[in-house]
Amino acid sequence: MTQTNIQLLLTGDEIMSGDIIDSNSAMIADHLASLGLRPRKKVTVGDLLEDLVSEMQQLSQRASVLIVNGGLGPTEDDKTAEALAQVINSPLCEHPTAIAQIEAWCEKLNYPMNDANKKQGILPKDVGILENTNGSAPGFYCEHNNCLMFFTPGVPSELNAMMTHSILPMLEQRFANIEPHTTKRLQVFGIGESSLQLKLRKHIPDWPNDIDMGFRAAYPQVEVKVTAHSKQAEEKIDGLTQQIKQVLKGHVIGEGEVQLPESLVTLLIEKQQTITTVESCTGGLIASKITSVAGSSAVFGAGFVTYSNEMKTTMVGVSETTLEQYGAVSEEVVIEMAQGALNKSNSDWAVAVSGIAGPGGATDDKPVGTVWVAWGDKVNIKTVKLFFPFTRVRFQEYVASVGLDLIRRELLGIEGRPNYFPK
Amino acid sequence: MTQTNIQLLLTGDEIMSGDIIDSNSAMIADHLASLGLRPRKKVTVGDLLEDLVSEMQQLSQRASVLIVNGGLGPTEDDKTAEALAQVINSPLCEHPTAIAQIEAWCEKLNYPMNDANKKQGILPKDVGILENTNGSAPGFYCEHNNCLMFFTPGVPSELNAMMTHSILPMLEQRFANIEPHTTKRLQVFGIGESSLQLKLRKHIPDWPNDIDMGFRAAYPQVEVKVTAHSKQAEEKIDGLTQQIKQVLKGHVIGEGEVQLPESLVTLLIEKQQTITTVESCTGGLIASKITSVAGSSAVFGAGFVTYSNEMKTTMVGVSETTLEQYGAVSEEVVIEMAQGALNKSNSDWAVAVSGIAGPGGATDDKPVGTVWVAWGDKVNIKTVKLFFPFTRVRFQEYVASVGLDLIRRELLGIEGRPNYFPK
Repeated sequence: MTQTNIQLLLTGDEIMSGDIIDSNSAMIADHLASLGLRPRKKVTVGDLLEDLVSEMQQLSQRASVLIVNGGLGPTEDDKTAEALAQVINSPLCEHPTAIAQIEAWCEKLNYPMNDANKKQGILPKDVGILENTNGSAPGFYCEHNNCLMFFTPGVPSELNAMMTHSILPMLEQRFANIEPHTTKRLQVFGIGESSLQLKLRKHIPDWPNDIDMGFRAAYPQVEVKVTAHSKQAEEKIDGLTQQIKQVLKGHVIGEGEVQLPESLVTLLIEKQQTITTVESCTGGLIASKITSVAGSSAVFGAGFVTYSNEMKTTMVGVSETTLEQYGAVSEEVVIEMAQGALNKSNSDWAVAVSGIAGPGGATDDKPVGTVWVAWGDKVNIKTVKLFFPFTRVRFQEYVASVGLDLIRRELLGIEGRPNYFPK
Repeated sequence: MTQTNIQLLLTGDEIMSGDIIDSNSAMIADHLASLGLRPRKKVTVGDLLEDLVSEMQQLSQRASVLIVNGGLGPTEDDKTAEALAQVINSPLCEHPTAIAQIEAWCEKLNYPMNDANKKQGILPKDVGILENTNGSAPGFYCEHNNCLMFFTPGVPSELNAMMTHSILPMLEQRFANIEPHTTKRLQVFGIGESSLQLKLRKHIPDWPNDIDMGFRAAYPQVEVKVTAHSKQAEEKIDGLTQQIKQVLKGHVIGEGEVQLPESLVTLLIEKQQTITTVESCTGGLIASKITSVAGSSAVFGAGFVTYSNEMKTTMVGVSETTLEQYGAVSEEVVIEMAQGALNKSNSDWAVAVSGIAGPGGATDDKPVGTVWVAWGDKVNIKTVKLFFPFTRVRFQEYVASVGLDLIRRELLGIEGRPNYFPK
């Protein structure tokens, strides 16, 4: 770890009041980690000008890099530029580079630049501009008290892009003698954080001391993060990653940031096969996860949201008798849903779900959280009954992910399936 | 607002690295808000002893109350007590009250107290003890630099109970003349933060000084927050909220935390009407938003995800000629999609979308971000062409929300519709 003292200043009444939980600072830390850097301190204050001025002044005295987040917006409570102007004693002006960037943004979206937009270009004269590829507020930077200060927007997607495209390259150039640092991430599904940790500790007892293993619950997935902090440690990383994969087998979705929907779509594209969805309790969530992936039109043509019993019959031909006899949440019904969707859409694969998301709808033998899943092709349809007694939205999210995972396992020919308990 | 200057110190390598997102400080702020108090500043550092000592020292000089969270656990990296011992110059000892509390806890859970448990009772001699009803680590408090300092556990359930049972009562007693504090929130859609502020400033020029108005972008909605900090101000809040509603008209979705899908489902339930969705570019997201609301089965029976051209024909009967002549992203096609879905599902209302989510699929006259929306009932279907040149996922999110909003406006009989520009 280098001597670089990086500090963060997060601003906004909404994060002070707790109305918003700050996840931007975790995102910034994640970006910094990719350079082997980590923040040493972070300070959060509201939108009071005097607090902003005093914190910028104080933090810049100790830090070698200060990343300020928030307060670049068009409204009155956005006071970051005003505070900086006082701190570095550089008058606010219509900054030509910033104004040009805002104009270009408005032109792209085809609307006229108003005064509020323009305010985002009124910045201290002496700052440099950071491009905002995802929004109207330019970022900016300057040097003060031997501290390199960055000013970034509070909207996460805008911050994320600015960290990648502008700030990391500048930091990399500046702190050229950063120690080597390699991180590998594995995305894992269908096993909880604590079971995961126990399993890895048991099966890889000789884990080397100079390599960190970390876990991050990124619901519904868990991320395993392996980090080496020296050249010597770096060489072991690939071998260890392989070992982890061998231990976790089918739980591993992939490396990097890959999400279940993307891994499934990629697999289907490779195999030139197609999928259809027929959803009751998830109400379209499985389809929307698949179609959130660019290029999914090559593998997905139709999704059926058969929420009512009547529509299970009309849309995919579930027989009324089956519905009456077994109820909508039953093995028989999900099988007919899957068969019907395969026939109507002429897809290679189908996944069907019917369950009780709650809070209403439970019966004595089918409590909230019960769900039947069917998946397969025209030759062979498998089923499973699962139970996830979560809140409605968490239930839907987990069931949708399980649906994707079952098809992924099928395509990969993985034997067996997990219990899918999240803990 | 009182003169109470409350500050928070959050500790732990895992929150500095971003592996854990800090939600404890939001919980503390929430508790404080119940007394009309709000924290003014929060500082986060890792587990370095020198950083802990220096922050406790510095923060206690300015704050009247300092709440420290984390670092009370049994492991080596828990250094809060050690740091405080240095700060207040009070030697660590086996604190009798703390040890007694830990013994009682172990007895309750029926396991012997080990050295790791005992470490949690080794505290500076001069602190008072706060009961931990949910765990083994006692909290503690002391006074230093005229600052009342509390030390609380990092486990959320333990912190929560300690705030309720020990810290709030002590603060209430101490700051007896706390002023009242009332907040009202309005959820707004289809107008950007900057236009919103300009509009309110123009139409409510005599906004009172003793009431705060804040804005929060909670994509795709914006929240307007009106806060009174005195008894006198409190009385104006309802009137001002009414004024805001009059100015923003149909943009206001509702009060509190309400989201678009919930407001639409509530409206449909009130009117005893049903809705169906037929989605191309949003791929099921509109349906999944509707069905994320508990009780939606009363108003939603079927959703059609007609992603391919062929399925637009098979599932909802869009004519092949129309598709050939105008292309899938066209007014003619979304009208036929809506009509087909209304017929197949026998719903009262339908919303249909077809667009280019990107990154692929653009043509010369239909760039990425183009979308056609149709909405209406069996008698009257309206259409609009919109353009949202965002990333794929943001585009889908916004289009889905617009779809819900158009039906909401229709049900409320609101004339006209917004431009739906997000800024």
